[in-house]
Amino acid sequence: MSDLTDAPRGPVVERVPAGDERLRLVCDDCGFIAYENPKIIVGAVVTHGDRYLLARRAIEPRKGFWTIPAGFMELNETAEAGAAREVWEEARARVTVGPLLGVYSLTHISQVHLIYRAEMIDADHAAGPESLEVALLTWDEIPWDDLAFPSVVWALEAQRRSVGRSDFAPEGAPERPHRPE
Amino acid sequence: MSDLTDAPRGPVVERVPAGDERLRLVCDDCGFIAYENPKIIVGAVVTHGDRYLLARRAIEPRKGFWTIPAGFMELNETAEAGAAREVWEEARARVTVGPLLGVYSLTHISQVHLIYRAEMIDADHAAGPESLEVALLTWDEIPWDDLAFPSVVWALEAQRRSVGRSDFAPEGAPERPHRPE
Repeated sequence: MSDLTDAPRGPVVERVPAGDERLRLVCDDCGFIAYENPKIIVGAVVTHGDRYLLARRAIEPRKGFWTIPAGFMELNETAEAGAAREVWEEARARVTVGPLLGVYSLTHISQVHLIYRAEMIDADHAAGPESLEVALLTWDEIPWDDLAFPSVVWALEAQRRSVGRSDFAPEGAPERPHRPE
Repeated sequence: MSDLTDAPRGPVVERVPAGDERLRLVCDDCGFIAYENPKIIVGAVVTHGDRYLLARRAIEPRKGFWTIPAGFMELNETAEAGAAREVWEEARARVTVGPLLGVYSLTHISQVHLIYRAEMIDADHAAGPESLEVALLTWDEIPWDDLAFPSVVWALEAQRRSVGRSDFAPEGAPERPHRPE
């Protein structure tokens, strides 16, 4: 029997692997390299007629505030299917996913948000387990002061600008233009 | 001293965590949940006048085949900055990143490719460490039979269709329309 110092320790050493240019967490026991990359959030601005589907969050962060349905993209799904899945999980609505409204790179938390425009197939909706309540609201009824995240505002406004259009470029997060680095 | 059975084992047990709906790898020692999510590839179809910047891969997979500059998005960068970084790393060219040409969800490998249109600031280019050679080729000179991946073809064709346009929807991978699942 070996003691704890010989036990597997996992990727706990910071080093630049051969052929790489960045520090990664590596495991000295098995050579495993833990590459950490940005995560994708998929979601949708969902409408039914002139109403917007919003959910009040039952979980942190920003519990009690209103959001569009969105969450972490899962393995082996398309971004569009992931957005439809999140709408179902959080707001129990079935949608047809349309064009991409926004691609928001949130560098401080290393997330890329892919937010689509989507239309409800019928008026059915209900709170999923991560929502306190779900509502179909007109533009003027949207609780602007109680939205959970800035990206919710960006996506709602992008949807508003896109009405009547189908072939348009997704917007980015409001920030400076990108130059080579 | 404790024996190996008491040593940290890392996230090696498959279980559906509380409040979740999917199997995740969890650690019974510390409660850590290893969420695995799709990874983002950022890249660009880069042009200089009527010529396309292609690189011949020095690394697997598809070593020896031609590609557009693209690679894993890194933490704390925007998608556009990541695309410009990949162009520099693989083809030593400086670019201005333009509109998004394609959002390709590759479900079998759980990757989302965000491919931008980009223009070279000048004609300078050279092989980076992951490239055997780099070339500026006219459309007719592109080695179509020796391209590394299907997504390279999709992106080049999307760029071609986008010439003269600035406000257009990015294309997806060629596949069936998305319905709620």
